[in-house]
Amino acid sequence: MSRRVGRPSSPQLDRASIGAAALELVDEDGSLSMPALARRLGVQVSSIYHHVEGRAGVIGLVRDLVTADIDATCFDALPWDEALDTWARTYRDAFAAHPSAVRLLATETIGGDQNLAMYTAAAAALLRAGFPVDRVMGIIVGVENFLLGAALDVSAPDEPIHVGDEPGAEDLRRAVAAAPSGPDRSLQAFDLGRAAMIEGLRALLVAEQQGQ
Amino acid sequence: MSRRVGRPSSPQLDRASIGAAALELVDEDGSLSMPALARRLGVQVSSIYHHVEGRAGVIGLVRDLVTADIDATCFDALPWDEALDTWARTYRDAFAAHPSAVRLLATETIGGDQNLAMYTAAAAALLRAGFPVDRVMGIIVGVENFLLGAALDVSAPDEPIHVGDEPGAEDLRRAVAAAPSGPDRSLQAFDLGRAAMIEGLRALLVAEQQGQ
Repeated sequence: MSRRVGRPSSPQLDRASIGAAALELVDEDGSLSMPALARRLGVQVSSIYHHVEGRAGVIGLVRDLVTADIDATCFDALPWDEALDTWARTYRDAFAAHPSAVRLLATETIGGDQNLAMYTAAAAALLRAGFPVDRVMGIIVGVENFLLGAALDVSAPDEPIHVGDEPGAEDLRRAVAAAPSGPDRSLQAFDLGRAAMIEGLRALLVAEQQGQ
Repeated sequence: MSRRVGRPSSPQLDRASIGAAALELVDEDGSLSMPALARRLGVQVSSIYHHVEGRAGVIGLVRDLVTADIDATCFDALPWDEALDTWARTYRDAFAAHPSAVRLLATETIGGDQNLAMYTAAAAALLRAGFPVDRVMGIIVGVENFLLGAALDVSAPDEPIHVGDEPGAEDLRRAVAAAPSGPDRSLQAFDLGRAAMIEGLRALLVAEQQGQ
Protein backbone atom coordinates (compact mmCIF):
# COMPACT_ATOMS: atom_id res chain seq x y z
CA MET A 1 0.00 0.00 0.00
CA SER A 2 3.01 2.35 0.31
CA ARG A 3 3.20 5.03 -2.36
CA ARG A 4 6.73 6.24 -2.99
CA VAL A 5 8.64 8.33 -5.48
CA GLY A 6 9.46 5.98 -8.34
CA ARG A 7 5.99 4.48 -8.39
CA PRO A 8 4.23 7.30 -10.19
CA SER A 9 1.51 5.07 -11.60
CA SER A 10 0.24 4.07 -8.19
CA PRO A 11 -3.36 2.98 -8.67
CA GLN A 12 -4.54 5.38 -5.95
CA LEU A 13 -3.59 8.44 -8.00
CA ASP A 14 -6.68 10.03 -9.49
CA ARG A 15 -8.37 13.40 -9.42
CA ALA A 16 -10.15 12.63 -6.14
CA SER A 17 -6.97 11.62 -4.30
CA ILE A 18 -5.05 14.59 -5.72
CA GLY A 19 -7.78 17.03 -4.68
CA ALA A 20 -8.07 15.57 -1.18
CA ALA A 21 -4.30 15.71 -0.58
CA ALA A 22 -4.09 19.25 -2.00
CA LEU A 23 -6.86 20.45 0.33
CA GLU A 24 -5.04 18.89 3.31
CA LEU A 25 -1.91 20.84 2.36
CA VAL A 26 -3.82 24.09 1.91
CA ASP A 27 -5.57 23.60 5.27
CA GLU A 28 -2.16 23.14 6.91
CA ASP A 29 -0.06 25.74 5.07
CA GLY A 30 -2.46 28.22 3.48
CA SER A 31 -0.59 27.70 0.23
CA LEU A 32 -0.11 25.03 -2.40
CA SER A 33 3.35 23.90 -3.47
CA MET A 34 3.31 21.30 -6.22
CA PRO A 35 6.54 19.58 -5.01
CA ALA A 36 5.01 19.33 -1.51
CA LEU A 37 1.84 17.83 -2.99
CA ALA A 38 3.86 15.31 -4.99
CA ARG A 39 5.80 14.32 -1.85
CA ARG A 40 2.57 13.86 0.08
CA LEU A 41 1.16 11.64 -2.67
CA GLY A 42 4.46 9.76 -3.10
CA VAL A 43 4.63 10.52 -6.80
CA GLN A 44 6.40 12.89 -9.21
CA VAL A 45 4.82 16.25 -10.05
CA SER A 46 4.61 15.12 -13.67
CA SER A 47 2.39 12.19 -12.62
CA ILE A 48 -0.07 14.62 -11.07
CA TYR A 49 -0.19 16.48 -14.37
CA HIS A 50 -1.29 13.28 -16.13
CA HIS A 51 -4.57 13.67 -14.25
CA VAL A 52 -5.02 17.42 -13.77
CA GLU A 53 -4.20 20.39 -15.98
CA GLY A 54 -1.38 22.13 -14.15
CA ARG A 55 -1.34 23.85 -10.78
CA ALA A 56 -4.46 25.80 -11.81
CA GLY A 57 -6.24 22.49 -12.29
CA VAL A 58 -5.25 21.33 -8.81
CA ILE A 59 -6.49 24.61 -7.33
CA GLY A 60 -9.75 24.03 -9.21
CA LEU A 61 -10.07 20.65 -7.44
CA VAL A 62 -9.42 22.31 -4.06
CA ARG A 63 -11.97 25.01 -4.85
CA ASP A 64 -14.59 22.44 -5.85
CA LEU A 65 -14.02 20.53 -2.56
CA VAL A 66 -14.24 23.65 -0.38
CA THR A 67 -17.35 24.93 -2.15
CA ALA A 68 -19.11 21.56 -2.55
CA ASP A 69 -21.89 22.42 -0.09
CA ILE A 70 -22.60 25.94 -1.32
CA ASP A 71 -26.21 26.17 -2.51
CA ALA A 72 -26.31 27.59 -6.04
CA THR A 73 -29.65 26.01 -6.96
CA CYS A 74 -31.32 28.86 -5.04
CA PHE A 75 -30.51 31.25 -7.89
CA ASP A 76 -32.92 29.37 -10.15
CA ALA A 77 -35.55 28.75 -7.47
CA LEU A 78 -35.86 32.03 -5.54
CA PRO A 79 -36.07 35.79 -6.18
CA TRP A 80 -32.55 37.23 -6.54
CA ASP A 81 -32.38 38.79 -3.06
CA GLU A 82 -33.61 35.68 -1.25
CA ALA A 83 -31.24 33.62 -3.38
CA LEU A 84 -28.28 35.85 -2.46
CA ASP A 85 -29.23 35.40 1.19
CA THR A 86 -29.31 31.59 0.96
CA TRP A 87 -26.14 31.46 -1.12
CA ALA A 88 -24.38 33.75 1.37
CA ARG A 89 -25.20 31.56 4.36
CA THR A 90 -23.96 28.38 2.71
CA TYR A 91 -20.91 30.17 1.23
CA ARG A 92 -19.79 31.46 4.65
CA ASP A 93 -20.22 28.01 6.21
CA ALA A 94 -18.18 26.39 3.44
CA PHE A 95 -15.19 28.72 3.77
CA ALA A 96 -15.42 28.89 7.58
CA ALA A 97 -14.53 25.18 7.56
CA HIS A 98 -11.33 25.99 5.62
CA PRO A 99 -10.05 29.40 6.81
CA SER A 100 -6.52 28.68 5.59
CA ALA A 101 -7.88 28.31 2.06
CA VAL A 102 -9.46 31.77 2.00
CA ARG A 103 -6.48 33.76 0.83
CA LEU A 104 -5.40 31.20 -1.78
CA LEU A 105 -8.86 30.84 -3.29
CA ALA A 106 -9.50 34.60 -3.17
CA THR A 107 -6.35 35.33 -5.13
CA GLU A 108 -6.21 32.56 -7.74
CA THR A 109 -8.15 32.41 -11.00
CA ILE A 110 -11.52 30.74 -10.54
CA GLY A 111 -12.06 27.54 -12.48
CA GLY A 112 -13.55 24.10 -11.97
CA ASP A 113 -16.85 22.95 -13.46
CA GLN A 114 -18.85 23.25 -10.26
CA ASN A 115 -17.65 26.81 -9.64
CA LEU A 116 -18.30 27.92 -13.19
CA ALA A 117 -21.85 26.54 -12.83
CA MET A 118 -22.28 28.46 -9.55
CA TYR A 119 -21.10 31.77 -11.01
CA THR A 120 -23.22 31.19 -14.11
CA ALA A 121 -26.33 30.70 -11.96
CA ALA A 122 -25.54 33.83 -9.92
CA ALA A 123 -24.84 35.97 -12.99
CA ALA A 124 -28.02 34.76 -14.70
CA ALA A 125 -30.12 35.58 -11.63
CA LEU A 126 -28.73 39.12 -11.35
CA LEU A 127 -29.22 39.74 -15.08
CA ARG A 128 -32.83 38.51 -14.88
CA ALA A 129 -33.39 40.82 -11.88
CA GLY A 130 -32.35 43.78 -14.01
CA PHE A 131 -28.84 44.62 -12.80
CA PRO A 132 -26.69 46.10 -15.61
CA VAL A 133 -24.45 43.49 -17.23
CA ASP A 134 -21.29 45.52 -16.56
CA ARG A 135 -21.98 45.50 -12.80
CA VAL A 136 -22.96 41.86 -12.32
CA MET A 137 -19.46 40.52 -11.63
CA GLY A 138 -18.71 43.51 -9.38
CA ILE A 139 -21.81 42.76 -7.31
CA ILE A 140 -20.98 39.05 -7.03
CA VAL A 141 -17.37 39.74 -6.04
CA GLY A 142 -18.40 42.54 -3.67
CA VAL A 143 -20.71 40.14 -1.83
CA GLU A 144 -18.00 37.44 -1.87
CA ASN A 145 -15.52 39.88 -0.33
CA PHE A 146 -17.87 40.17 2.62
CA LEU A 147 -18.45 36.42 2.80
CA LEU A 148 -14.73 35.56 2.82
CA GLY A 149 -14.10 38.03 5.64
CA ALA A 150 -17.13 36.68 7.51
CA ALA A 151 -15.78 33.13 7.10
CA LEU A 152 -12.46 34.20 8.69
CA ASP A 153 -14.34 35.92 11.52
CA VAL A 154 -15.86 32.58 12.54
CA SER A 155 -12.33 31.60 13.73
CA ALA A 156 -11.84 34.80 15.72
CA PRO A 157 -11.43 34.29 19.48
CA ASP A 158 -14.27 34.57 21.97
CA GLU A 159 -12.74 37.86 23.09
CA PRO A 160 -12.14 39.47 19.70
CA ILE A 161 -11.06 42.76 21.20
CA HIS A 162 -9.29 43.32 24.49
CA VAL A 163 -10.33 46.61 26.11
CA GLY A 164 -8.71 47.32 29.44
CA ASP A 165 -9.36 50.34 31.62
CA GLU A 166 -7.84 52.82 29.15
CA PRO A 167 -9.17 56.32 29.78
CA GLY A 168 -11.38 57.54 26.93
CA ALA A 169 -12.36 54.02 25.80
CA GLU A 170 -15.74 54.11 27.58
CA ASP A 171 -17.82 53.95 24.37
CA LEU A 172 -15.86 50.94 23.13
CA ARG A 173 -16.15 49.20 26.51
CA ARG A 174 -19.93 49.72 26.48
CA ALA A 175 -20.28 48.40 22.92
CA VAL A 176 -18.11 45.32 23.59
CA ALA A 177 -19.97 44.57 26.85
CA ALA A 178 -23.36 44.79 25.10
CA ALA A 179 -22.39 42.63 22.10
CA PRO A 180 -23.33 38.94 21.91
CA SER A 181 -20.65 36.46 22.96
CA GLY A 182 -19.45 33.09 21.68
CA PRO A 183 -20.61 31.98 18.21
CA ASP A 184 -23.43 34.55 18.34
CA ARG A 185 -20.86 37.33 18.06
CA SER A 186 -19.66 36.45 14.55
CA LEU A 187 -23.18 35.40 13.58
CA GLN A 188 -24.54 38.85 14.49
CA ALA A 189 -21.84 40.59 12.43
CA PHE A 190 -22.64 38.27 9.52
CA ASP A 191 -26.40 38.82 9.84
CA LEU A 192 -26.05 42.62 10.05
CA GLY A 193 -23.56 42.85 7.18
CA ARG A 194 -25.48 40.46 4.94
CA ALA A 195 -28.81 42.21 5.53
CA ALA A 196 -27.25 45.65 4.97
CA MET A 197 -25.56 44.59 1.75
CA ILE A 198 -28.66 42.96 0.26
CA GLU A 199 -30.81 45.96 1.28
CA GLY A 200 -28.28 48.27 -0.37
CA LEU A 201 -28.34 46.17 -3.55
CA ARG A 202 -32.16 46.40 -3.59
CA ALA A 203 -31.82 50.20 -3.43
CA LEU A 204 -29.23 50.10 -6.24
CA LEU A 205 -31.59 48.08 -8.43
CA VAL A 206 -34.46 50.52 -7.81
CA ALA A 207 -32.17 53.43 -8.69
CA GLU A 208 -31.06 51.65 -11.88
CA GLN A 209 -34.63 50.97 -12.92
CA GLN A 210 -35.73 54.54 -12.20
CA GLY A 211 -32.79 55.82 -14.21
CA GLN A 212 -33.85 53.90 -17.31
CA MET B 1 26.81 44.56 14.24
CA SER B 2 25.91 40.86 14.21
CA ARG B 3 23.08 39.91 16.56
CA ARG B 4 23.30 36.34 17.73
CA VAL B 5 21.76 34.03 20.27
CA GLY B 6 23.59 34.70 23.51
CA ARG B 7 23.51 38.45 23.08
CA PRO B 8 19.93 39.04 24.16
CA SER B 9 20.53 42.62 25.24
CA SER B 10 21.62 43.71 21.77
CA PRO B 11 21.06 47.48 21.64
CA GLN B 12 18.97 47.14 18.45
CA LEU B 13 16.24 45.19 20.24
CA ASP B 14 13.28 47.45 20.95
CA ARG B 15 9.58 47.49 20.19
CA ALA B 16 10.13 49.07 16.76
CA SER B 17 12.66 46.45 15.62
CA ILE B 18 10.53 43.60 17.03
CA GLY B 19 7.41 44.88 15.25
CA ALA B 20 9.21 45.38 11.94
CA ALA B 21 10.74 41.88 12.00
CA ALA B 22 7.41 40.32 13.02
CA LEU B 23 5.61 42.04 10.12
CA GLU B 24 8.27 40.75 7.71
CA LEU B 25 7.65 37.20 8.96
CA VAL B 26 3.88 37.56 8.68
CA ASP B 27 4.19 38.97 5.15
CA GLU B 28 6.28 35.93 4.19
CA ASP B 29 4.50 33.14 6.07
CA GLY B 30 1.03 34.40 6.94
CA SER B 31 1.67 33.29 10.51
CA LEU B 32 3.82 34.30 13.46
CA SER B 33 6.06 31.81 15.24
CA MET B 34 7.88 33.28 18.22
CA PRO B 35 10.94 30.99 17.79
CA ALA B 36 11.18 32.09 14.13
CA LEU B 37 10.95 35.73 15.19
CA ALA B 38 13.68 35.24 17.78
CA ARG B 39 15.91 33.57 15.16
CA ARG B 40 15.34 36.47 12.77
CA LEU B 41 16.27 38.98 15.46
CA GLY B 42 19.22 36.87 16.67
CA VAL B 43 17.94 36.80 20.24
CA GLN B 44 16.13 34.47 22.64
CA VAL B 45 12.33 34.54 22.81
CA SER B 46 12.62 35.62 26.45
CA SER B 47 14.51 38.76 25.36
CA ILE B 48 11.60 39.74 23.13
CA TYR B 49 9.31 39.40 26.13
CA HIS B 50 11.42 41.95 28.01
CA HIS B 51 10.06 44.53 25.56
CA VAL B 52 6.60 43.26 24.58
CA GLU B 53 3.89 41.49 26.55
CA GLY B 54 3.80 37.99 25.07
CA ARG B 55 2.88 36.84 21.58
CA ALA B 56 -0.32 38.91 21.84
CA GLY B 57 1.83 41.99 22.35
CA VAL B 58 3.89 41.20 19.25
CA ILE B 59 0.70 40.74 17.21
CA GLY B 60 -0.45 44.12 18.55
CA LEU B 61 2.75 45.67 17.14
CA VAL B 62 2.13 43.99 13.76
CA ARG B 63 -1.47 45.20 13.79
CA ASP B 64 -0.43 48.76 14.58
CA LEU B 65 2.09 48.72 11.70
CA VAL B 66 -0.41 47.31 9.17
CA THR B 67 -3.14 49.74 10.21
CA ALA B 68 -0.91 52.82 10.68
CA ASP B 69 -2.41 54.67 7.69
CA ILE B 70 -6.07 53.91 8.37
CA ASP B 71 -7.95 57.17 8.89
CA ALA B 72 -9.88 57.02 12.16
CA THR B 73 -10.01 60.81 12.67
CA CYS B 74 -12.90 60.85 10.17
CA PHE B 75 -15.21 59.41 12.84
CA ASP B 76 -14.92 62.63 14.85
CA ALA B 77 -14.97 64.95 11.82
CA LEU B 78 -17.69 63.60 9.51
CA PRO B 79 -21.26 62.24 9.71
CA TRP B 80 -21.15 58.52 10.50
CA ASP B 81 -21.89 57.31 6.95
CA GLU B 82 -19.29 59.55 5.31
CA ALA B 83 -16.84 58.55 8.04
CA LEU B 84 -17.46 54.83 7.40
CA ASP B 85 -16.80 55.46 3.71
CA THR B 86 -13.48 57.22 4.34
CA TRP B 87 -12.42 54.67 6.95
CA ALA B 88 -13.31 51.84 4.57
CA ARG B 89 -11.17 53.18 1.73
CA THR B 90 -8.10 53.63 3.93
CA TYR B 91 -8.70 50.28 5.70
CA ARG B 92 -8.80 48.35 2.41
CA ASP B 93 -5.62 50.06 1.19
CA ALA B 94 -3.82 49.24 4.44
CA PHE B 95 -4.61 45.53 4.36
CA ALA B 96 -4.19 45.23 0.58
CA ALA B 97 -0.51 46.05 1.18
CA HIS B 98 -0.25 43.04 3.54
CA PRO B 99 -2.57 40.29 2.22
CA SER B 100 -0.68 37.58 4.11
CA ALA B 101 -1.54 39.35 7.36
CA VAL B 102 -5.29 39.28 6.76
CA ARG B 103 -6.05 35.87 8.21
CA LEU B 104 -3.77 36.30 11.25
CA LEU B 105 -5.13 39.72 12.16
CA ALA B 106 -8.74 38.65 11.49
CA THR B 107 -8.45 35.74 13.89
CA GLU B 108 -6.36 37.09 16.79
CA THR B 109 -7.61 39.25 19.65
CA ILE B 110 -7.41 42.94 18.80
CA GLY B 111 -5.12 45.01 20.96
CA GLY B 112 -2.57 47.79 20.59
CA ASP B 113 -3.16 51.41 21.62
CA GLN B 114 -3.68 52.70 18.09
CA ASN B 115 -6.26 50.02 17.29
CA LEU B 116 -8.15 50.51 20.53
CA ALA B 117 -8.30 54.24 19.71
CA MET B 118 -9.62 53.44 16.22
CA TYR B 119 -12.35 51.10 17.47
CA THR B 120 -13.25 53.59 20.20
CA ALA B 121 -13.70 56.35 17.61
CA ALA B 122 -15.82 54.07 15.39
CA ALA B 123 -17.99 52.87 18.30
CA ALA B 124 -18.52 56.42 19.56
CA ALA B 125 -19.58 57.62 16.08
CA LEU B 126 -22.13 54.80 15.65
CA LEU B 127 -23.52 55.39 19.15
CA ARG B 128 -23.88 59.13 18.46
CA ALA B 129 -25.64 58.30 15.18
CA GLY B 130 -28.24 56.32 17.11
CA PHE B 131 -27.34 52.67 16.45
CA PRO B 132 -28.27 50.43 19.41
CA VAL B 133 -25.32 49.74 21.67
CA ASP B 134 -25.71 45.96 21.34
CA ARG B 135 -25.32 46.18 17.54
CA VAL B 136 -22.39 48.57 17.31
CA MET B 137 -19.63 45.94 17.40
CA GLY B 138 -21.59 43.73 14.99
CA ILE B 139 -21.83 46.60 12.51
CA ILE B 140 -18.12 47.43 12.79
CA VAL B 141 -17.08 43.79 12.38
CA GLY B 142 -19.60 43.24 9.56
CA VAL B 143 -18.08 46.14 7.61
CA GLU B 144 -14.57 44.89 8.43
CA ASN B 145 -15.45 41.44 7.10
CA PHE B 146 -16.17 43.09 3.76
CA LEU B 147 -13.01 45.20 3.89
CA LEU B 148 -10.71 42.25 4.63
CA GLY B 149 -12.16 40.30 1.69
CA ALA B 150 -11.88 43.40 -0.52
CA ALA B 151 -8.22 43.76 0.51
CA LEU B 152 -7.54 40.16 -0.58
CA ASP B 153 -9.36 40.77 -3.87
CA VAL B 154 -6.81 43.48 -4.76
CA SER B 155 -4.28 40.62 -5.21
CA ALA B 156 -6.58 38.57 -7.42
CA PRO B 157 -5.31 38.00 -10.96
CA ASP B 158 -6.30 40.14 -13.93
CA GLU B 159 -8.41 37.21 -15.13
CA PRO B 160 -10.20 36.36 -11.86
CA ILE B 161 -12.44 33.80 -13.51
CA HIS B 162 -11.64 31.61 -16.47
CA VAL B 163 -14.72 30.93 -18.60
CA GLY B 164 -14.11 28.81 -21.65
CA ASP B 165 -16.71 27.82 -24.21
CA GLU B 166 -18.72 25.68 -21.81
CA PRO B 167 -22.29 25.26 -23.02
CA GLY B 168 -24.79 27.06 -20.78
CA ALA B 169 -22.25 29.58 -19.47
CA GLU B 170 -23.41 32.36 -21.80
CA ASP B 171 -24.66 34.66 -19.02
CA LEU B 172 -21.38 34.33 -17.12
CA ARG B 173 -19.37 34.97 -20.30
CA ARG B 174 -21.39 38.14 -20.99
CA ALA B 175 -20.98 39.43 -17.43
CA VAL B 176 -17.22 38.73 -17.36
CA ALA B 177 -16.74 40.36 -20.79
CA ALA B 178 -18.64 43.50 -19.71
CA ALA B 179 -16.82 43.90 -16.36
CA PRO B 180 -13.94 46.37 -15.94
CA SER B 181 -10.43 44.91 -16.22
CA GLY B 182 -7.16 45.45 -14.39
CA PRO B 183 -7.24 47.34 -11.06
CA ASP B 184 -10.68 48.76 -11.98
CA ARG B 185 -12.14 45.27 -11.54
CA SER B 186 -11.48 44.97 -7.82
CA LEU B 187 -12.17 48.70 -7.36
CA GLN B 188 -15.64 48.31 -8.88
CA ALA B 189 -16.45 45.37 -6.58
CA PHE B 190 -15.22 47.42 -3.61
CA ASP B 191 -17.21 50.50 -4.64
CA LEU B 192 -20.41 48.53 -5.20
CA GLY B 193 -20.10 46.52 -2.00
CA ARG B 194 -19.15 49.52 0.12
CA ALA B 195 -21.97 51.67 -1.23
CA ALA B 196 -24.50 48.86 -0.79
CA MET B 197 -23.43 48.16 2.78
CA ILE B 198 -23.51 51.81 3.87
CA GLU B 199 -26.89 52.32 2.16
CA GLY B 200 -28.21 49.24 3.96
CA LEU B 201 -26.92 50.55 7.30
CA ARG B 202 -28.69 53.88 6.67
CA ALA B 203 -31.92 51.91 6.14
CA LEU B 204 -31.27 49.93 9.35
CA LEU B 205 -30.80 53.16 11.30
CA VAL B 206 -34.05 54.61 9.92
CA ALA B 207 -35.88 51.41 10.87
CA GLU B 208 -34.39 51.52 14.38
CA GLN B 209 -35.43 55.13 14.86
CA GLN B 210 -38.95 54.49 13.57
CA GLY B 211 -39.25 51.53 15.92
CA GLN B 212 -38.47 53.65 18.98
